[in-house]
Amino acid sequence: MTVLRILQLLGGAVFAASGALAAGRKQMDLLGVLVIALVTSIGGGTIRDLLLDRPVFWIADPAFLAISLIAAIVTLVYVRWLHPPEKALEIADALGLGLFTISGTQIALAAGAPGIVAVVMGTITGVAGGAIRDVLSAEIPLILRKGELYATAAIAGSLVYLGLARGGAPESSAAAVGMITTIALRFAAIAWGLSLPVFRLRDPR
Amino acid sequence: MTVLRILQLLGGAVFAASGALAAGRKQMDLLGVLVIALVTSIGGGTIRDLLLDRPVFWIADPAFLAISLIAAIVTLVYVRWLHPPEKALEIADALGLGLFTISGTQIALAAGAPGIVAVVMGTITGVAGGAIRDVLSAEIPLILRKGELYATAAIAGSLVYLGLARGGAPESSAAAVGMITTIALRFAAIAWGLSLPVFRLRDPR
Amino acid sequence: MTVLRILQLLGGAVFAASGALAAGRKQMDLLGVLVIALVTSIGGGTIRDLLLDRPVFWIADPAFLAISLIAAIVTLVYVRWLHPPEKALEIADALGLGLFTISGTQIALAAGAPGIVAVVMGTITGVAGGAIRDVLSAEIPLILRKGELYATAAIAGSLVYLGLARGGAPESSAAAVGMITTIALRFAAIAWGLSLPVFRLRDPR
Repeated sequence: MTVLRILQLLGGAVFAASGALAAGRKQMDLLGVLVIALVTSIGGGTIRDLLLDRPVFWIADPAFLAISLIAAIVTLVYVRWLHPPEKALEIADALGLGLFTISGTQIALAAGAPGIVAVVMGTITGVAGGAIRDVLSAEIPLILRKGELYATAAIAGSLVYLGLARGGAPESSAAAVGMITTIALRFAAIAWGLSLPVFRLRDPR
Repeated sequence: MTVLRILQLLGGAVFAASGALAAGRKQMDLLGVLVIALVTSIGGGTIRDLLLDRPVFWIADPAFLAISLIAAIVTLVYVRWLHPPEKALEIADALGLGLFTISGTQIALAAGAPGIVAVVMGTITGVAGGAIRDVLSAEIPLILRKGELYATAAIAGSLVYLGLARGGAPESSAAAVGMITTIALRFAAIAWGLSLPVFRLRDPR
Repeated sequence: MTVLRILQLLGGAVFAASGALAAGRKQMDLLGVLVIALVTSIGGGTIRDLLLDRPVFWIADPAFLAISLIAAIVTLVYVRWLHPPEKALEIADALGLGLFTISGTQIALAAGAPGIVAVVMGTITGVAGGAIRDVLSAEIPLILRKGELYATAAIAGSLVYLGLARGGAPESSAAAVGMITTIALRFAAIAWGLSLPVFRLRDPR
């Protein structure tokens, strides 16, 4: 079992948990919650694999489906009987974002993509599952809302990883630093409300 | 003409009709209605084919496009001059769900997918077209709303088909029983308001 | 550099500008605006390439990503300091629609698709990016709203191009006339409020 695979499985589990927590805020039935958890977990990597014309990861290896379903069910049981920590959703989501962004960047580079494309692929892997989750819930995706630094955190972590790996750093150190960059930026945005400036048109029409 | 192909064409026609009926409830122009009907009809199978890396069915065989367009136009003419039966949309949609879920499961198995993946593919084939229709109409997809048993009906029918086919039942009997399972569950949900329990977080934040 | 490539690059630039203008009407941060601009610019062609099982154009040639990002940033700077002309969004969008619809039709024909499929592919190339932009903004896509002639303009231009090219007209003339058809129809819809009849059910339930 490679490190990349472990990162992907971990990322899938925490994103499934975040999907289950997000769906729990809507009036959805149990199966709807599982569908949302699964989509959040496998959506980003699925789009990445389609774009790179690789075999879709959870079809090639259904363990990813099983892990995501188990993580979603454990989350449901947990929040039903125990009081989840405040911001549990944001924390799970930030961890998933870091894990998936870097593993997506690694996969794209391994598939021969140039650097700019690998950064886009890492970002897609990190943010698309959550974006589909939000679209299915008829909300403007978190990634686009102001004051979240969501795509910003993914792009920054992916660029840091790419720079370190190109600069000759050991693969695992580069990946760890990239992930920490993404997760730390998201935590900072959540904790202190950091944000990029909002773009406002002076007179749109 | 194989039985599978007939099921697919029939499913495409009833889903196109359901898409046209759904779009008729929004303020859309005639072409917008046809676009929604087409998306509802071919959306699920398109995603299935992309995920399985098969040629997309309506590109390989444009008869599917023609059938869907004709079904949508006939539906428009019909509802303009005749009074459609109550619940016409729900009935067409339930038939399409049963036809597409089983044919999607069959196609995935024929492409060599393991059982759990085939069930997911059958469910996607059945529900994704309607989900895209709802997303384009800026609504939370029917599949996720409580009290609908929508994805539940698809998953149950697909599992029944898979169990019977694996257990040695003749292909056509297994397919028929699977389809009836899905359609009957949806009808029951519509008629008696059956539902899965709604998942509610005690204190989400 | 072929004419087709120039059309695609130009279409990408004007769609990126239209995406940036559209995002500027929402409360999004700077990076959110760039993401929306990029999605609007590359979304339609990406779906076309996935459906036709071609290499995705911006992965094969990252120049498209660079052009779109530059166009989006120039648009942001421009509207911040200068007063954009009224209807700037609609005009950029109409130009992108014409350029992308015809280039998408050409690409599908070159990939061996039959005529009806090529028209659908041209229309998808033209309209899907804007539709994803609208869905991400939690709005009903422009393409489906009444009184816009949006998909109508794309389909008409694609059909005109197909007819002329099949009828023996020189490729570049056929493309030019097709593009002008699409752009002129959109301008007419914007200027005079032309529209197709709205489809209304007598008694939907």
